[in-house]
Amino acid sequence: MKKNIITISREFGSGGRTIGKKVAEKLGIEFYDRDLIRKMVEESGLKEKYVEQYAEYAPSADRFAYSFVGLGEETVSPLMILWEAKKKVIQEFAQNSACVIVGNCADYILKDRDDCLKVFLYADEATKEKRIREIYGEVGLKQKNHVHDMDVKRGINYNYFTGQEWGRAQNYDLALNRGSLGIDKCVELIIEAVK
Amino acid sequence: MKKNIITISREFGSGGRTIGKKVAEKLGIEFYDRDLIRKMVEESGLKEKYVEQYAEYAPSADRFAYSFVGLGEETVSPLMILWEAKKKVIQEFAQNSACVIVGNCADYILKDRDDCLKVFLYADEATKEKRIREIYGEVGLKQKNHVHDMDVKRGINYNYFTGQEWGRAQNYDLALNRGSLGIDKCVELIIEAVK
Repeated sequence: MKKNIITISREFGSGGRTIGKKVAEKLGIEFYDRDLIRKMVEESGLKEKYVEQYAEYAPSADRFAYSFVGLGEETVSPLMILWEAKKKVIQEFAQNSACVIVGNCADYILKDRDDCLKVFLYADEATKEKRIREIYGEVGLKQKNHVHDMDVKRGINYNYFTGQEWGRAQNYDLALNRGSLGIDKCVELIIEAVK
Repeated sequence: MKKNIITISREFGSGGRTIGKKVAEKLGIEFYDRDLIRKMVEESGLKEKYVEQYAEYAPSADRFAYSFVGLGEETVSPLMILWEAKKKVIQEFAQNSACVIVGNCADYILKDRDDCLKVFLYADEATKEKRIREIYGEVGLKQKNHVHDMDVKRGINYNYFTGQEWGRAQNYDLALNRGSLGIDKCVELIIEAVK
Protein backbone atom coordinates (compact mmCIF):
# COMPACT_ATOMS: atom_id res chain seq x y z
CA MET A 1 0.00 0.00 0.00
CA LYS A 2 1.23 3.49 -0.85
CA LYS A 3 2.47 5.36 2.19
CA ASN A 4 0.92 8.82 2.57
CA ILE A 5 2.07 9.60 6.07
CA ILE A 6 5.66 9.53 7.31
CA THR A 7 6.36 9.68 11.04
CA ILE A 8 9.91 10.46 12.13
CA SER A 9 11.01 9.54 15.65
CA ARG A 10 14.51 10.71 16.40
CA GLU A 11 17.28 11.04 18.93
CA PHE A 12 17.99 14.60 20.01
CA GLY A 13 20.59 16.08 17.66
CA SER A 14 20.14 13.51 14.90
CA GLY A 15 18.68 16.01 12.43
CA GLY A 16 15.10 14.73 12.42
CA ARG A 17 13.52 18.11 11.68
CA THR A 18 15.90 18.90 8.80
CA ILE A 19 15.45 15.46 7.25
CA GLY A 20 11.66 15.54 7.72
CA LYS A 21 11.41 18.98 6.11
CA LYS A 22 13.51 17.95 3.10
CA VAL A 23 11.48 14.77 2.60
CA ALA A 24 8.23 16.77 2.71
CA GLU A 25 9.58 19.35 0.24
CA LYS A 26 10.76 16.70 -2.21
CA LEU A 27 7.47 14.82 -2.04
CA GLY A 28 5.39 17.99 -2.11
CA ILE A 29 3.51 17.08 1.07
CA GLU A 30 2.84 18.87 4.37
CA PHE A 31 5.47 19.11 7.11
CA TYR A 32 4.05 19.48 10.60
CA ASP A 33 6.33 20.97 13.19
CA ARG A 34 5.37 24.27 14.88
CA ASP A 35 1.80 23.75 13.62
CA LEU A 36 1.63 20.72 15.84
CA ILE A 37 2.47 22.77 18.95
CA ARG A 38 0.05 25.54 17.89
CA LYS A 39 -2.82 23.10 17.35
CA MET A 40 -2.10 21.25 20.60
CA VAL A 41 -2.25 24.57 22.45
CA GLU A 42 -5.62 25.37 20.82
CA GLU A 43 -7.02 21.92 21.43
CA SER A 44 -5.84 21.51 25.03
CA GLY A 45 -6.28 25.06 26.30
CA LEU A 46 -2.85 24.73 27.96
CA LYS A 47 -0.15 27.39 27.78
CA GLU A 48 2.28 27.20 24.83
CA LYS A 49 5.25 26.98 27.17
CA TYR A 50 3.72 24.00 28.97
CA VAL A 51 2.98 22.22 25.70
CA GLU A 52 6.52 22.83 24.43
CA GLN A 53 8.00 21.57 27.66
CA TYR A 54 5.94 18.44 28.19
CA ALA A 55 4.56 17.33 24.80
CA GLU A 56 7.59 15.14 24.17
CA TYR A 57 9.51 15.13 27.41
CA ALA A 58 8.81 13.50 30.74
CA PRO A 59 8.82 15.91 33.70
CA SER A 60 12.03 14.28 34.96
CA ALA A 61 14.64 11.86 33.68
CA ASP A 62 13.81 8.98 36.02
CA ARG A 63 11.33 6.16 35.99
CA PHE A 64 9.11 7.88 38.51
CA ALA A 65 8.55 10.80 36.14
CA TYR A 66 4.85 10.10 35.72
CA SER A 67 4.10 8.85 39.23
CA PHE A 68 1.63 11.60 39.99
CA VAL A 69 -0.14 11.89 36.64
CA GLY A 70 -3.15 9.90 37.76
CA LEU A 71 -4.83 7.68 35.23
CA GLY A 72 -8.12 7.16 37.08
CA GLU A 73 -11.23 8.49 35.35
CA GLU A 74 -11.76 11.05 38.05
CA THR A 75 -8.32 12.63 37.98
CA VAL A 76 -7.46 14.47 34.80
CA SER A 77 -4.01 15.99 34.91
CA PRO A 78 -2.69 18.54 32.39
CA LEU A 79 -0.32 15.84 31.09
CA MET A 80 -3.26 13.61 30.21
CA ILE A 81 -5.14 16.54 28.64
CA LEU A 82 -2.03 17.19 26.56
CA TRP A 83 -1.84 13.54 25.48
CA GLU A 84 -5.49 13.49 24.41
CA ALA A 85 -5.03 16.75 22.48
CA LYS A 86 -1.94 15.36 20.78
CA LYS A 87 -3.74 12.21 19.67
CA LYS A 88 -6.63 14.22 18.25
CA VAL A 89 -4.44 16.74 16.43
CA ILE A 90 -2.14 14.10 14.90
CA GLN A 91 -5.06 11.95 13.76
CA GLU A 92 -6.67 15.00 12.15
CA PHE A 93 -3.46 16.01 10.38
CA ALA A 94 -3.03 12.50 9.03
CA GLN A 95 -6.66 12.42 7.91
CA ASN A 96 -6.47 15.72 6.07
CA SER A 97 -3.52 15.20 3.74
CA ALA A 98 -0.26 13.38 3.05
CA CYS A 99 2.34 14.67 5.51
CA VAL A 100 5.51 14.24 7.54
CA ILE A 101 5.14 14.40 11.33
CA VAL A 102 8.20 14.59 13.58
CA GLY A 103 8.22 13.07 17.07
CA ASN A 104 5.26 13.18 19.48
CA CYS A 105 4.59 9.41 19.46
CA ALA A 106 2.99 9.87 16.03
CA ASP A 107 4.16 6.39 15.00
CA TYR A 108 2.13 4.90 17.87
CA ILE A 109 -0.88 7.22 17.48
CA LEU A 110 -1.14 6.28 13.78
CA LYS A 111 -0.22 2.61 14.23
CA ASP A 112 -3.52 1.36 12.80
CA ARG A 113 -3.06 3.18 9.48
CA ASP A 114 -1.60 0.99 6.74
CA ASP A 115 -0.47 4.04 4.80
CA CYS A 116 1.99 5.21 7.44
CA LEU A 117 5.77 4.73 7.17
CA LYS A 118 7.43 4.77 10.59
CA VAL A 119 11.03 5.99 10.60
CA PHE A 120 13.53 6.16 13.48
CA LEU A 121 16.65 8.33 13.18
CA TYR A 122 19.69 7.99 15.40
CA ALA A 123 23.34 8.94 15.36
CA ASP A 124 26.60 8.46 17.22
CA GLU A 125 27.37 10.86 20.07
CA ALA A 126 29.98 12.86 18.07
CA THR A 127 27.54 13.58 15.24
CA LYS A 128 24.82 14.62 17.68
CA GLU A 129 27.18 16.88 19.63
CA LYS A 130 28.30 18.60 16.41
CA ARG A 131 24.69 19.17 15.42
CA ILE A 132 23.73 20.48 18.85
CA ARG A 133 26.67 22.91 18.76
CA GLU A 134 25.54 24.19 15.35
CA ILE A 135 21.97 24.73 16.49
CA TYR A 136 22.28 25.66 20.17
CA GLY A 137 25.87 26.90 20.27
CA GLU A 138 28.36 26.34 23.04
CA VAL A 139 25.66 26.63 25.70
CA GLY A 140 24.23 23.35 24.44
CA LEU A 141 27.62 21.72 24.47
CA LYS A 142 28.45 22.87 27.98
CA GLN A 143 25.43 20.96 29.15
CA LYS A 144 26.39 17.70 27.57
CA ASN A 145 24.41 15.74 30.12
CA HIS A 146 21.42 17.74 29.07
CA VAL A 147 21.63 16.05 25.67
CA HIS A 148 21.28 12.65 27.20
CA ASP A 149 18.50 13.88 29.42
CA MET A 150 16.54 14.98 26.36
CA ASP A 151 16.60 11.45 24.97
CA VAL A 152 15.98 9.85 28.35
CA LYS A 153 12.97 12.12 28.85
CA ARG A 154 11.69 11.39 25.35
CA GLY A 155 12.08 7.69 26.00
CA ILE A 156 10.19 7.82 29.31
CA ASN A 157 7.43 9.93 27.75
CA TYR A 158 7.09 7.53 24.81
CA ASN A 159 7.14 4.45 26.98
CA TYR A 160 4.59 5.83 29.43
CA PHE A 161 1.99 6.72 26.82
CA THR A 162 2.55 3.92 24.31
CA GLY A 163 3.73 0.98 26.42
CA GLN A 164 6.45 0.44 23.81
CA GLU A 165 10.20 0.86 24.02
CA TRP A 166 11.43 4.02 22.33
CA GLY A 167 14.13 3.42 19.73
CA ARG A 168 13.61 -0.33 19.45
CA ALA A 169 14.12 -1.04 15.74
CA GLN A 170 11.24 -3.52 15.69
CA ASN A 171 8.71 -0.72 16.32
CA TYR A 172 9.55 1.01 13.04
CA ASP A 173 9.62 0.25 9.32
CA LEU A 174 12.98 1.88 8.78
CA ALA A 175 15.72 2.88 11.23
CA LEU A 176 18.53 5.01 9.84
CA ASN A 177 21.92 5.95 11.23
CA ARG A 178 22.13 9.60 10.27
CA GLY A 179 25.73 9.67 11.53
CA SER A 180 27.11 7.14 9.06
CA LEU A 181 24.63 7.71 6.22
CA GLY A 182 24.45 11.51 6.26
CA ILE A 183 21.38 13.73 5.93
CA ASP A 184 20.96 13.56 2.13
CA LYS A 185 21.19 9.76 2.04
CA CYS A 186 18.59 9.49 4.82
CA VAL A 187 16.27 11.74 2.78
CA GLU A 188 16.78 9.58 -0.32
CA LEU A 189 16.16 6.32 1.56
CA ILE A 190 12.93 7.57 3.12
CA ILE A 191 11.67 8.71 -0.28
CA GLU A 192 12.70 5.38 -1.83
CA ALA A 193 10.81 3.56 0.94
CA VAL A 194 7.49 5.32 0.22
CA LYS A 195 7.76 5.12 -3.58
CA MET B 1 33.06 6.57 1.48
CA LYS B 2 31.84 3.92 -0.94
CA LYS B 3 30.61 0.80 0.83
CA ASN B 4 32.17 -2.41 -0.50
CA ILE B 5 31.05 -4.78 2.20
CA ILE B 6 27.47 -5.32 3.36
CA THR B 7 26.80 -7.24 6.56
CA ILE B 8 23.27 -8.46 7.20
CA SER B 9 22.21 -9.35 10.72
CA ARG B 10 18.71 -10.76 10.87
CA GLU B 11 15.98 -12.26 12.95
CA PHE B 12 15.25 -15.90 12.19
CA GLY B 13 12.62 -16.05 9.44
CA SER B 14 13.05 -12.46 8.26
CA GLY B 15 14.47 -13.47 4.88
CA GLY B 16 18.06 -12.35 5.44
CA ARG B 17 19.62 -14.97 3.12
CA THR B 18 17.21 -14.25 0.27
CA ILE B 19 17.66 -10.50 0.58
CA GLY B 20 21.45 -10.79 0.90
CA LYS B 21 21.67 -13.01 -2.18
CA LYS B 22 19.53 -10.67 -4.29
CA VAL B 23 21.58 -7.65 -3.21
CA ALA B 24 24.82 -9.44 -4.13
CA GLU B 25 23.43 -10.50 -7.52
CA LYS B 26 22.23 -7.01 -8.37
CA LEU B 27 25.53 -5.43 -7.34
CA GLY B 28 27.59 -8.18 -8.96
CA ILE B 29 29.52 -8.93 -5.76
CA GLU B 30 30.22 -12.08 -3.74
CA PHE B 31 27.62 -13.61 -1.44
CA TYR B 32 29.09 -15.63 1.43
CA ASP B 33 26.83 -18.18 3.00
CA ARG B 34 27.80 -21.89 2.87
CA ASP B 35 31.37 -20.81 1.97
CA LEU B 36 31.56 -19.22 5.38
CA ILE B 37 30.76 -22.53 7.11
CA ARG B 38 33.17 -24.42 4.83
CA LYS B 39 36.03 -22.01 5.51
CA MET B 40 35.36 -21.97 9.25
CA VAL B 41 35.53 -25.76 9.27
CA GLU B 42 38.87 -25.66 7.41
CA GLU B 43 40.30 -22.93 9.61
CA SER B 44 39.15 -24.32 12.97
CA GLY B 45 39.59 -28.04 12.36
CA LEU B 46 36.20 -28.56 14.00
CA LYS B 47 33.48 -30.82 12.60
CA GLU B 48 31.02 -29.24 10.15
CA LYS B 49 28.07 -30.18 12.32
CA TYR B 50 29.63 -28.42 15.34
CA VAL B 51 30.34 -25.29 13.31
CA GLU B 52 26.78 -25.23 11.95
CA GLN B 53 25.34 -25.67 15.40
CA TYR B 54 27.42 -23.18 17.34
CA ALA B 55 28.76 -20.57 14.90
CA GLU B 56 25.74 -18.36 15.45
CA TYR B 57 23.85 -19.92 18.30
CA ALA B 58 24.60 -20.08 21.99
CA PRO B 59 24.62 -23.63 23.43
CA SER B 60 21.42 -22.81 25.34
CA ALA B 61 18.82 -20.07 25.44
CA ASP B 62 19.65 -18.68 28.86
CA ARG B 63 22.15 -16.18 30.16
CA PHE B 64 24.40 -18.90 31.53
CA ALA B 65 24.91 -20.31 28.03
CA TYR B 66 28.60 -19.49 27.97
CA SER B 67 29.39 -20.09 31.63
CA PHE B 68 31.85 -22.86 30.92
CA VAL B 69 33.59 -21.49 27.85
CA GLY B 70 36.60 -20.26 29.77
CA LEU B 71 38.28 -17.10 28.63
CA GLY B 72 41.56 -17.50 30.46
CA GLU B 73 44.67 -17.80 28.30
CA GLU B 74 45.24 -21.35 29.40
CA THR B 75 41.82 -22.72 28.58
CA VAL B 76 40.92 -22.83 24.92
CA SER B 77 37.47 -24.23 24.30
CA PRO B 78 36.11 -25.26 20.89
CA LEU B 79 33.71 -22.28 21.06
CA MET B 80 36.67 -19.90 21.35
CA ILE B 81 38.51 -21.69 18.53
CA LEU B 82 35.37 -21.27 16.43
CA TRP B 83 35.17 -17.55 17.25
CA GLU B 84 38.82 -16.99 16.30
CA ALA B 85 38.33 -18.92 13.04
CA LYS B 86 35.22 -16.90 12.27
CA LYS B 87 37.02 -13.59 12.79
CA LYS B 88 39.89 -14.66 10.54
CA VAL B 89 37.65 -16.00 7.75
CA ILE B 90 35.35 -12.97 7.72
CA GLN B 91 38.27 -10.52 7.72
CA GLU B 92 39.85 -12.41 4.81
CA PHE B 93 36.61 -12.47 2.81
CA ALA B 94 36.18 -8.73 3.33
CA GLN B 95 39.79 -8.11 2.37
CA ASN B 96 39.57 -10.11 -0.86
CA SER B 97 36.60 -8.54 -2.60
CA ALA B 98 33.34 -6.64 -2.29
CA CYS B 99 30.75 -8.94 -0.73
CA VAL B 100 27.61 -9.54 1.30
CA ILE B 101 28.02 -11.50 4.54
CA VAL B 102 24.98 -12.76 6.46
CA GLY B 103 25.02 -13.13 10.25
CA ASN B 104 28.01 -14.38 12.24
CA CYS B 105 28.68 -11.06 14.05
CA ALA B 106 30.25 -9.81 10.80
CA ASP B 107 29.07 -6.26 11.58
CA TYR B 108 31.14 -6.34 14.78
CA ILE B 109 34.13 -8.18 13.30
CA LEU B 110 34.37 -5.57 10.51
CA LYS B 111 33.46 -2.58 12.68
CA ASP B 112 36.76 -0.79 12.00
CA ARG B 113 36.25 -0.79 8.24
CA ASP B 114 34.77 2.45 6.90
CA ASP B 115 33.60 0.70 3.74
CA CYS B 116 31.16 -1.59 5.52
CA LEU B 117 27.38 -1.03 5.55
CA LYS B 118 25.75 -2.71 8.55
CA VAL B 119 22.15 -3.81 8.02
CA PHE B 120 19.68 -5.35 10.48
CA LEU B 121 16.55 -7.11 9.21
CA TYR B 122 13.55 -7.89 11.35
CA ALA B 123 9.88 -8.72 10.90
CA ASP B 124 6.65 -9.20 12.79
CA GLU B 125 5.88 -12.68 14.13
CA ALA B 126 3.26 -13.46 11.46
CA THR B 127 5.67 -12.72 8.61
CA LYS B 128 8.41 -14.81 10.21
CA GLU B 129 6.05 -17.73 10.85
CA LYS B 130 4.92 -17.68 7.21
CA ARG B 131 8.53 -17.69 6.04
CA ILE B 132 9.48 -20.50 8.41
CA ARG B 133 6.53 -22.58 7.19
CA GLU B 134 7.65 -22.05 3.56
CA ILE B 135 11.24 -23.08 4.27
CA TYR B 136 10.94 -25.68 7.03
CA GLY B 137 7.35 -26.80 6.55
CA GLU B 138 4.87 -27.62 9.30
CA VAL B 139 7.60 -29.14 11.45
CA GLY B 140 9.04 -25.68 11.89
CA LEU B 141 5.68 -24.25 12.76
CA LYS B 142 4.87 -26.93 15.31
CA GLN B 143 7.91 -25.83 17.18
CA LYS B 144 6.97 -22.21 17.36
CA ASN B 145 8.97 -21.74 20.53
CA HIS B 146 11.93 -22.97 18.59
CA VAL B 147 11.69 -19.82 16.46
CA HIS B 148 12.09 -17.62 19.47
CA ASP B 149 14.87 -19.80 20.78
CA MET B 150 16.80 -19.29 17.55
CA ASP B 151 16.74 -15.52 18.03
CA VAL B 152 17.40 -15.75 21.76
CA LYS B 153 20.41 -17.98 21.06
CA ARG B 154 21.64 -15.66 18.33
CA GLY B 155 21.28 -12.73 20.68
CA ILE B 156 23.19 -14.43 23.50
CA ASN B 157 25.95 -15.52 21.08
CA TYR B 158 26.25 -11.99 19.66
CA ASN B 159 26.23 -10.35 23.05
CA TYR B 160 28.81 -12.73 24.50
CA PHE B 161 31.37 -12.25 21.76
CA THR B 162 30.79 -8.58 20.91
CA GLY B 163 29.67 -7.03 24.19
CA GLN B 164 26.92 -5.31 22.18
CA GLU B 165 23.17 -5.76 22.22
CA TRP B 166 21.90 -7.73 19.23
CA GLY B 167 19.15 -5.95 17.28
CA ARG B 168 19.70 -2.54 18.85
CA ALA B 169 19.15 -0.13 15.93
CA GLN B 170 22.03 2.07 17.05
CA ASN B 171 24.57 -0.68 16.24
CA TYR B 172 23.66 -0.62 12.54
CA ASP B 173 23.55 1.84 9.64
CA LEU B 174 20.20 0.67 8.44
CA ALA B 175 17.48 -1.40 10.11
CA LEU B 176 14.65 -2.60 7.91
CA ASN B 177 11.28 -4.10 8.71
CA ARG B 178 11.02 -6.83 6.10
CA GLY B 179 7.45 -7.52 7.22
CA SER B 180 6.06 -4.11 6.31
CA LEU B 181 8.49 -3.23 3.50
CA GLY B 182 8.66 -6.58 1.70
CA ILE B 183 11.71 -8.36 0.30
CA ASP B 184 12.10 -6.38 -2.94
CA LYS B 185 11.88 -3.01 -1.19
CA CYS B 186 14.51 -4.12 1.34
CA VAL B 187 16.80 -5.10 -1.55
CA GLU B 188 16.26 -1.69 -3.22
CA LEU B 189 16.92 0.23 -0.01
CA ILE B 190 20.16 -1.59 0.73
CA ILE B 191 21.37 -0.94 -2.83
CA GLU B 192 20.33 2.72 -2.56
CA ALA B 193 22.25 2.98 0.73
CA VAL B 194 25.56 1.79 -0.80
CA LYS B 195 25.24 3.79 -4.02
